[in-house]
Amino acid sequence: MRMKCTISYDGHLFYGYQVQPGQRTVQDELEKALKTLHKTKERIPVVSSGRTDSGVHAVGQTIHFDSPLSIPEAKWPYALNALLPDDVAVTTAEVVDDQFHARFSAKKKEYRYMIYKGRHLNVFKRHYAYHVPYELDLKMVEKAAQHLVGTHDFTSFCTAKTEVKDKVRTVYELEWSETEDGLQMRIVGSGFLYNMVRIITGTLLDVGTGKFSPDDIEKMLAAKNRDAAGRTAPAHGLYLWNVIYDN
Amino acid sequence: MRMKCTISYDGHLFYGYQVQPGQRTVQDELEKALKTLHKTKERIPVVSSGRTDSGVHAVGQTIHFDSPLSIPEAKWPYALNALLPDDVAVTTAEVVDDQFHARFSAKKKEYRYMIYKGRHLNVFKRHYAYHVPYELDLKMVEKAAQHLVGTHDFTSFCTAKTEVKDKVRTVYELEWSETEDGLQMRIVGSGFLYNMVRIITGTLLDVGTGKFSPDDIEKMLAAKNRDAAGRTAPAHGLYLWNVIYDN
Repeated sequence: MRMKCTISYDGHLFYGYQVQPGQRTVQDELEKALKTLHKTKERIPVVSSGRTDSGVHAVGQTIHFDSPLSIPEAKWPYALNALLPDDVAVTTAEVVDDQFHARFSAKKKEYRYMIYKGRHLNVFKRHYAYHVPYELDLKMVEKAAQHLVGTHDFTSFCTAKTEVKDKVRTVYELEWSETEDGLQMRIVGSGFLYNMVRIITGTLLDVGTGKFSPDDIEKMLAAKNRDAAGRTAPAHGLYLWNVIYDN
Repeated sequence: MRMKCTISYDGHLFYGYQVQPGQRTVQDELEKALKTLHKTKERIPVVSSGRTDSGVHAVGQTIHFDSPLSIPEAKWPYALNALLPDDVAVTTAEVVDDQFHARFSAKKKEYRYMIYKGRHLNVFKRHYAYHVPYELDLKMVEKAAQHLVGTHDFTSFCTAKTEVKDKVRTVYELEWSETEDGLQMRIVGSGFLYNMVRIITGTLLDVGTGKFSPDDIEKMLAAKNRDAAGRTAPAHGLYLWNVIYDN
């Protein structure tokens, strides 16, 4: 039976999602819990929609795995959460067709980036939002963001060492909004290259401070060179919010 | 010069506010930072409005200390935050009269207690709200809360080992409200006995599940015995929100 689960994790004590020898990772915790639940010594591989980096959070990461256990759908989160550490949680579970694949069936992904604007450090958000105490021109940020919406070659907006050849991606939505004590960036795309959301955030923040103008974004895209774009915003403000499948 | 500061701390990695040999405490971090700032080997004593227990958070704890340094008021938070760990922050500072005393000048204190009502654990709130996934009758909780407002002997609502003799306190306000994903209790009082807010919260939650009726609160107060009241809610949902002085 193939199970599709939505999971949430606090990235700050993890060395990212994907198994890395000698490091604490989300995938490793999930596979350990499944092993215990299945009373087996064999690995039960967990496939995610894609890795997330060290420090990056997830509200709605999606995974799949195959299990012979006949646990009712609604009981799966309880069964796994009882075995998981308290910084990973399974929030939904459903039986899916064997053709479903957490990575290859994904159509869109939504990320959010949280910014705290208070003057002094907010101790409760130190791992959960990027502290930006300086002035930002939100109108300029929004104007610049519109240049990124659509289908583009995002070579300038991913880490130079990115190995994937095709760097054309589609950004469907890119919105900034004010929150109670800061800002939130919401981005929906067909897929994201390595560090792409963090470089987009950092570059748009650079527009907000006046370092770049909104029109510079077009030149950055055309340059197809990481050095043309702005800085990479830190990991701890970033959340994989939702993975969207066909149904 | 006497300085009054508002400080905020994330209680989860602290063994409470007050200095305890061999333990990490908020007071100890503050006094270490002041020592470094004053380039002295002598202790600069920090006086707070009162201790908070291990795991309890503060949004608006108030402290005072005396300093010969002539730093402008607005610069004090920056000077201290640069020396403090990232789970304590000074948010305001002002020069006050030498008669001001963080503890003895305090007129009222406000605490808040945060409850998360989602079905499964919220990984981002595991240290910051109490997870109550079961049904609560908020009408009954609010009815019970009204019996606690006013001036009462709170012997039943403090830890049995509390040494202070006079257990009469005044609760000015006690409100429950719904939040985006849970509940918040707000309590304002003349002062609070050891564990008093946590026992009030735990007892009111016991009313919410039907273990006690709202009218049982009067019997509990009359009993003047800790065993008469309900359980102690956990520390990690509790916040010292504000300390109120005369001006």
